Amino acid sequence: MPASRLPGDTIAAVATPPGRGGVGIVRLSGPLAKAVATKLFTSARPDFAGLRPYRLHHGTVRDASGRVLDEVMAAFMPGPGSYTGEDTAEIFCHGAPVVLAAVLAAACAAGARPAGPGEFTKRAYLNGRLDLSQAEAVAELIAARGAVDASLALTRLSGGMGEAARELGRALGELRAGVCLAVDFPDEEVECQPKEAFADGVAAVMDRIDALLAAGRRARPFREGAVVALFGKVNAGKSSLFNAFLGTDRALVADQPGTTRDYLEEGLDLDGVPVRLTDTAGLRETPDAVEAAGKKRGRDVAGRADLGLYVVDGAAPYAPDPEAEALLEELGPRRVLVVVNKADLPAAEPGAAKKLKARGLETVAVSARTGFGLTGLLTAMRERLTATDGPPEPAATAPNAREAASLEAARLELAGLVADIRAGVPYDLLGARLETAAALVADITGETTPDDVLNAVFSKFCIGK
Amino acid sequence: MPASRLPGDTIAAVATPPGRGGVGIVRLSGPLAKAVATKLFTSARPDFAGLRPYRLHHGTVRDASGRVLDEVMAAFMPGPGSYTGEDTAEIFCHGAPVVLAAVLAAACAAGARPAGPGEFTKRAYLNGRLDLSQAEAVAELIAARGAVDASLALTRLSGGMGEAARELGRALGELRAGVCLAVDFPDEEVECQPKEAFADGVAAVMDRIDALLAAGRRARPFREGAVVALFGKVNAGKSSLFNAFLGTDRALVADQPGTTRDYLEEGLDLDGVPVRLTDTAGLRETPDAVEAAGKKRGRDVAGRADLGLYVVDGAAPYAPDPEAEALLEELGPRRVLVVVNKADLPAAEPGAAKKLKARGLETVAVSARTGFGLTGLLTAMRERLTATDGPPEPAATAPNAREAASLEAARLELAGLVADIRAGVPYDLLGARLETAAALVADITGETTPDDVLNAVFSKFCIGK
Repeated sequence: MPASRLPGDTIAAVATPPGRGGVGIVRLSGPLAKAVATKLFTSARPDFAGLRPYRLHHGTVRDASGRVLDEVMAAFMPGPGSYTGEDTAEIFCHGAPVVLAAVLAAACAAGARPAGPGEFTKRAYLNGRLDLSQAEAVAELIAARGAVDASLALTRLSGGMGEAARELGRALGELRAGVCLAVDFPDEEVECQPKEAFADGVAAVMDRIDALLAAGRRARPFREGAVVALFGKVNAGKSSLFNAFLGTDRALVADQPGTTRDYLEEGLDLDGVPVRLTDTAGLRETPDAVEAAGKKRGRDVAGRADLGLYVVDGAAPYAPDPEAEALLEELGPRRVLVVVNKADLPAAEPGAAKKLKARGLETVAVSARTGFGLTGLLTAMRERLTATDGPPEPAATAPNAREAASLEAARLELAGLVADIRAGVPYDLLGARLETAAALVADITGETTPDDVLNAVFSKFCIGK
Repeated sequence: MPASRLPGDTIAAVATPPGRGGVGIVRLSGPLAKAVATKLFTSARPDFAGLRPYRLHHGTVRDASGRVLDEVMAAFMPGPGSYTGEDTAEIFCHGAPVVLAAVLAAACAAGARPAGPGEFTKRAYLNGRLDLSQAEAVAELIAARGAVDASLALTRLSGGMGEAARELGRALGELRAGVCLAVDFPDEEVECQPKEAFADGVAAVMDRIDALLAAGRRARPFREGAVVALFGKVNAGKSSLFNAFLGTDRALVADQPGTTRDYLEEGLDLDGVPVRLTDTAGLRETPDAVEAAGKKRGRDVAGRADLGLYVVDGAAPYAPDPEAEALLEELGPRRVLVVVNKADLPAAEPGAAKKLKARGLETVAVSARTGFGLTGLLTAMRERLTATDGPPEPAATAPNAREAASLEAARLELAGLVADIRAGVPYDLLGARLETAAALVADITGETTPDDVLNAVFSKFCIGK
């Protein structure tokens, strides 16, 4: 907890989401927080005696010229018990972008400066109010797209991952102590750990790391979401299927090929798995330069998707298409579901589904028009996207990508250590590997994390947090 | 102030703008506000002794099963001094849509119900905390798109319009009293107002109404914004001009006619005048059904615009176009500016601008590609949109559309009264007109406003306010 890195200036930002609403908040943090808030705020009460800690005061905010900017509530939270650990103040304005911008400008004219992304939470971390894992959990909670990932972020926000990391650190510390004893008192009658017991101890730590990594893997689709791309020939009904999924008509659907000039993207909640659904341009050779550009972009997106839905027209004779074949090749059968659309119409060639099945592809019959088969398709999609590990346990402690990378590096170090032990490498050469693993685990809570990593972490935040 | 209409149930809503941010607020109002907040909230302090008024408490929110939904601050504001006049509570959560939805659901499970649009402010009005004009000003402030309309809304929020309405009411009451005296004591030696003095008194009230209506007219473009539509033949450069205005490339621009299949719309701040800029489909006869549908919609939008920008290609021979001519006819010269685009290229027919000028149309030469002439075009647009009256005075008391309608109806009544006085209608028949005018003026503050008008007013609010 590097408390000595406490920054000296006072930052200000709008802390509520952008846009319009009943309430919008301007937040201040730093040594001048109270002074700036006091300069801006005029109480509605004649007996006002200054901003009192954790108290809501009613009044107006004025700029330096005395012009009223809004009718507000103001609150002051003194450090070190505040969110950031510094003096902080919050001004509860109307949720009007124009007003919030004016109040923020007045705060900056009165001595604050605009905060950068994540700067409030970074100060909370630097002042020891949150460990790095908890700080990241704040951003993860705000970004949560479903109940599952929100609950995972809350577990991390309450310190679950830090606790797990400290437990690993303690276990590694004990192993290190065992090595020290063996090294420092080689001739004494100390209880030198037998090789196998030492290797078992390291393996036990590796098992705990594996359990955490598995929780992270199971959490991944719920947290990061998945990209699902629709592809297939012009007029197979991709746009209609897209709209059937969304229950809206954002895509411009018409009985004419080539309507989707660019790709469309929409969020979809697949029973806890957040999905970005992409409707690519119809695969058709065309002299139209605009459409061709849209198609190119659509194809790139489809090739990178977690799952491709190959939409084929079940009411037309099936003819393989070189563009679709190229994508099928790129994605492979594990990342493709064949959607045989227009199941409400008489199938022109019932053998199409059979042919595609014979190639190891899973097929689902639907009618985007009537909704037939959609539920089955959604179930198949969800299974495909989560099949490997299933959903995480409720309130599981699941590392994020940064933490998983540290854990994987630590695990690699420990695997090397086990091999070294078994190969008979002397104990005095083994300590370094344990120290490396311990340092990697300590990165999770940010105890030893270098500045560039910290900057990368906090730059991903929204401003005002 | 119909305090007896105080509703009995407890409402809950997210009060901050939708989307993600540092902080999001769930607001409660009604007799159970404190009980519901107490049920949800668990303090972080062991010595917590309940929610104290206007105090920020730190802790967690849990659902009925005890599951932690978020780490929060909670505050309780007792009635009748609160915003709504009822007991209210606010829970300051992380600005995560998933979390806010879960906290709102927990509040509803604990005895609240979801609030409708504007329901908090409606309660503030019903409980006499705000008059109707102030209540509307809350929505206007939140919707403000520039500093001018925000400042007009703040004047109204602080009661400026109600004050003006009450002054008018007092003046009408004095005139009514004069009539009563003349009627009640016709044979007494009371100072019966001479006809001309009475008519002058009525005219003085009309002048005050006129001044308010003029302020409303001058405020209108700043408040409501204006619709500016681009129209003209395919490939005249409408989309490029649209993008030059916005400094973005939202429109899909390509060197090929017919790219804009539907119409695009974007907000633009014209030095205080909020503009909705619309790019219509190219006017071209086409067999393409999708494009034709887009064109039709585009043409309807352009015909209703406050200002049409007729974009002509200055580098191509000018040929009148029946579609454009129809729109020019519909809009009339006051609502049209001709934009002669591609001024950076050698003009194929320098006479085009002259021909259009000869028809009473104002022309501006620009190059959407190089930016030449854009500033002049913006100035011409702003003048066209505000020319009649100029901008309002700072902090002017400007009625909104509903209030202006009441003032205009009152003015009509008073104009009839002046005619009646001059025609020698007996005093005992004049009182009714004064009473009608007074009732119309009282509608501004909502003292006599019927329920259907109130419902119309509050249904325009966002939920959570």
